[in-house]
Amino acid sequence: LYVDRIKEGDIVILMDDEGRKLRVRAEKVTKKVKGLGVANLGKLLEASFGDRVTVAAKEFTVLRPSIVDSIETMERRAQIIVPKDAAYILLHCDIGSGSLVVEAGSGSGALTTVLAWAVAPNGKVVSYDNREEHQAVARRNIERAGLSGLVEWKMGDLTEGIVETGVDAFVLDIGNPWDGVDTAAKALRKGGHLATFSPTANQVETTVKAMRERGFVGIQASELIHREMVVIDGGIRPSFDMRGHSGYICIARWLG
Amino acid sequence: LYVDRIKEGDIVILMDDEGRKLRVRAEKVTKKVKGLGVANLGKLLEASFGDRVTVAAKEFTVLRPSIVDSIETMERRAQIIVPKDAAYILLHCDIGSGSLVVEAGSGSGALTTVLAWAVAPNGKVVSYDNREEHQAVARRNIERAGLSGLVEWKMGDLTEGIVETGVDAFVLDIGNPWDGVDTAAKALRKGGHLATFSPTANQVETTVKAMRERGFVGIQASELIHREMVVIDGGIRPSFDMRGHSGYICIARWLG
Amino acid sequence: LYVDRIKEGDIVILMDDEGRKLRVRAEKVTKKVKGLGVANLGKLLEASFGDRVTVAAKEFTVLRPSIVDSIETMERRAQIIVPKDAAYILLHCDIGSGSLVVEAGSGSGALTTVLAWAVAPNGKVVSYDNREEHQAVARRNIERAGLSGLVEWKMGDLTEGIVETGVDAFVLDIGNPWDGVDTAAKALRKGGHLATFSPTANQVETTVKAMRERGFVGIQASELIHREMVVIDGGIRPSFDMRGHSGYICIARWLG
Amino acid sequence: LYVDRIKEGDIVILMDDEGRKLRVRAEKVTKKVKGLGVANLGKLLEASFGDRVTVAAKEFTVLRPSIVDSIETMERRAQIIVPKDAAYILLHCDIGSGSLVVEAGSGSGALTTVLAWAVAPNGKVVSYDNREEHQAVARRNIERAGLSGLVEWKMGDLTEGIVETGVDAFVLDIGNPWDGVDTAAKALRKGGHLATFSPTANQVETTVKAMRERGFVGIQASELIHREMVVIDGGIRPSFDMRGHSGYICIARWLG
Repeated sequence: LYVDRIKEGDIVILMDDEGRKLRVRAEKVTKKVKGLGVANLGKLLEASFGDRVTVAAKEFTVLRPSIVDSIETMERRAQIIVPKDAAYILLHCDIGSGSLVVEAGSGSGALTTVLAWAVAPNGKVVSYDNREEHQAVARRNIERAGLSGLVEWKMGDLTEGIVETGVDAFVLDIGNPWDGVDTAAKALRKGGHLATFSPTANQVETTVKAMRERGFVGIQASELIHREMVVIDGGIRPSFDMRGHSGYICIARWLG
Repeated sequence: LYVDRIKEGDIVILMDDEGRKLRVRAEKVTKKVKGLGVANLGKLLEASFGDRVTVAAKEFTVLRPSIVDSIETMERRAQIIVPKDAAYILLHCDIGSGSLVVEAGSGSGALTTVLAWAVAPNGKVVSYDNREEHQAVARRNIERAGLSGLVEWKMGDLTEGIVETGVDAFVLDIGNPWDGVDTAAKALRKGGHLATFSPTANQVETTVKAMRERGFVGIQASELIHREMVVIDGGIRPSFDMRGHSGYICIARWLG
Repeated sequence: LYVDRIKEGDIVILMDDEGRKLRVRAEKVTKKVKGLGVANLGKLLEASFGDRVTVAAKEFTVLRPSIVDSIETMERRAQIIVPKDAAYILLHCDIGSGSLVVEAGSGSGALTTVLAWAVAPNGKVVSYDNREEHQAVARRNIERAGLSGLVEWKMGDLTEGIVETGVDAFVLDIGNPWDGVDTAAKALRKGGHLATFSPTANQVETTVKAMRERGFVGIQASELIHREMVVIDGGIRPSFDMRGHSGYICIARWLG
Repeated sequence: LYVDRIKEGDIVILMDDEGRKLRVRAEKVTKKVKGLGVANLGKLLEASFGDRVTVAAKEFTVLRPSIVDSIETMERRAQIIVPKDAAYILLHCDIGSGSLVVEAGSGSGALTTVLAWAVAPNGKVVSYDNREEHQAVARRNIERAGLSGLVEWKMGDLTEGIVETGVDAFVLDIGNPWDGVDTAAKALRKGGHLATFSPTANQVETTVKAMRERGFVGIQASELIHREMVVIDGGIRPSFDMRGHSGYICIARWLG
């Protein structure tokens, strides 16, 4: 899986010794790189993953992007899903190698990236959005993450019904997830999972009611609060800096 | 992936209409089943996954176990890892299809189960423990989850060094994770990840210091607080019932 | 303030050496005491606060009830306010010695107890409720806490308007706090504070909107999550046991 | 209590219509006021509390400072205690009108301010610090809050023993609270309370052990996590902005 030599066009992570990350494309050019200034990236082509290289007079380790690297260095429109929430959805929806997953909307492709990574190498993610400019960003991000072969893009409003059936997991990251609950019920296989992600309590309430009404079981609405702990001189304590909220996750199961 | 017919020996989940789960083995016997009383399980062999069956005068849907089903219905010694924490470790350690993972200890096999599920179908989990009776429970649980082919069991104290190299991720769920940090550094490939899981703040402090000293980068100690939201007549609120703590997770990266 | 001798009729706390509390009335009787069995309480009359006494063959320290003792040993109907929330309301509403406070409803008198304690010795709490049986419990609890002189009880629906004016703080612990916002605005002095306490997010939303519409300023909706830390052999960690939620607090200020 | 006319020298809060606060001294001068530019403050002397006044071309309501106003507009050195934590300490230590309280250190006087406010009009706070420059700031803040008559300042290291006895509550907001536990035990009356406030988990661990060893009972270590809820178009959710941590509070009781 982990081939050594860096090839022309590879997306690589340059990590400095404090763990800070830059994402660049390995190519024979000298160009302006955000966070680096003007840099000659051609020398990356003489390196292997794991090597130390000096770019723009600074030392880095060159890494093949991990899934979290890909998300953290992604081109983004508005807010993207946080890894903790994406991870929770994956596990609770049983999304693994070989799964068939439908998601809406494509957003900036952050969740798409995680889903595609999880279903590799044989599964598939079908990603719906009704705004072309959003899906364009998502496509670019998926391409850079090297996951294009795992995603099928569809324009359109998923709440009006879709052609997919036998779906293992259905993920709704749209403003009105309740409107997608019926579509999900029709597309999911027996035992398949539905997940929604929404910032407000009201959205969760409406979604849970729609799930109940449509006959989903095992419905659970949750929030994951992420707290960093810092080790300072003399001890350990929670960080003073904290993101107060990302969103609520609803998980439900379809018994058909 | 999802073959329909239930075969002799299959582990299945019987889910009732409220989403409660029982795990049983499909076999031609009448026996006492925890939570059901005396039940004839032979009729499961005439069903397919997704079917409704009546067992011990109660109706169920028969499901192929999801990864969360497997963990929730697992035979356990002491506390096992909670899905939210396992999911966080998977994603932040970039553990996916094909990964080579080393873990210690085997515990009851809950984390092993999640790791094996994540690396399927081509990866491998090497699970170390120095207590035979623990690993015996873990082995049974992995066998029931149908993941035996993905796990290699080793008896011994991982803190004394191991033979594995080029490891993608190293997971320490032992009381003294700091003692495994050097072993992890030697076994990990460049760019590989180390995760530890510990209940006390003191363990985190010692672990983070050991990681710093050994040269790991991108060290982050975190806690995930899981909060359930309940939809009641008249509104939505956080649940009054809550698990106050599971443990802290430390993630670090090895640049070699 | 802290007179030594225990007098007939005094409510006292018997605290054992682990800090567990019993509330009894000091009187020359032998009676069944919850948590003690049959006990002769007459000997309390020969003791002073702070003394060690043996009651029902067990040793206790006799204490004058603190405000938290009073709440924790209170007769209760349904859920009562938690000290952390009561304390937050006191400080953020500037409720101190001499304040004039209006509250609704009386509930079991837990919040009334804290308010009366805070305005002592010269302030006043006016407590409204429209259910006689609730207010009867509240009155008994306030009497036992020795705070009767500080509370005026009123039967009636505060949302229909009240006679009080120049009120320093207004506290609504009712199911429909938004319906009391106009009454509060009319009763509060300039610079006075309004606090509400509600379990659901929907109640908070409606309340905040009503406050905004009526012209309150400095509106802040908050939740206080209380987490206990436990010191065990080998370290410190958050408690596994935790109450997930008590309620949300809204604070606002009236500029007239 | 709430006299109307503003007098020369009064500290007043100018609150704008969004609830933002400025603290100024009412005096016949034109001077630079932080947040206002050059302003003529003399016109405040013609107003009463609750009046609308125009200062530096902006409209304000003039308020007598609440306890939270005093803390929020305080001159500060380093971090000061957060109102939620101060309120929790007050209630759990039974600090009310008439209490005798000892605190160390004086810090910037934020906690001193809350304690003095709570014991008014007849109680007393004795505030120890061993750094003159800290206590000077605390004194100025207490003077501005109009609470000077309730506080006695002492220079010195409280951990070496103090002269006070019969103390109702003892509050330690110093880096090494465990070193004050013995002094507290000697000074407290039977049934009196000890509170400590510390940012790290290690400090809590050492403090709890010192309290246990010295014979305190009812020891409880806690953290209060404050979460703001925001009402936006379309719903309510926790705020994205959040302070991750202030500190841990330990409460214990002395039975003598």
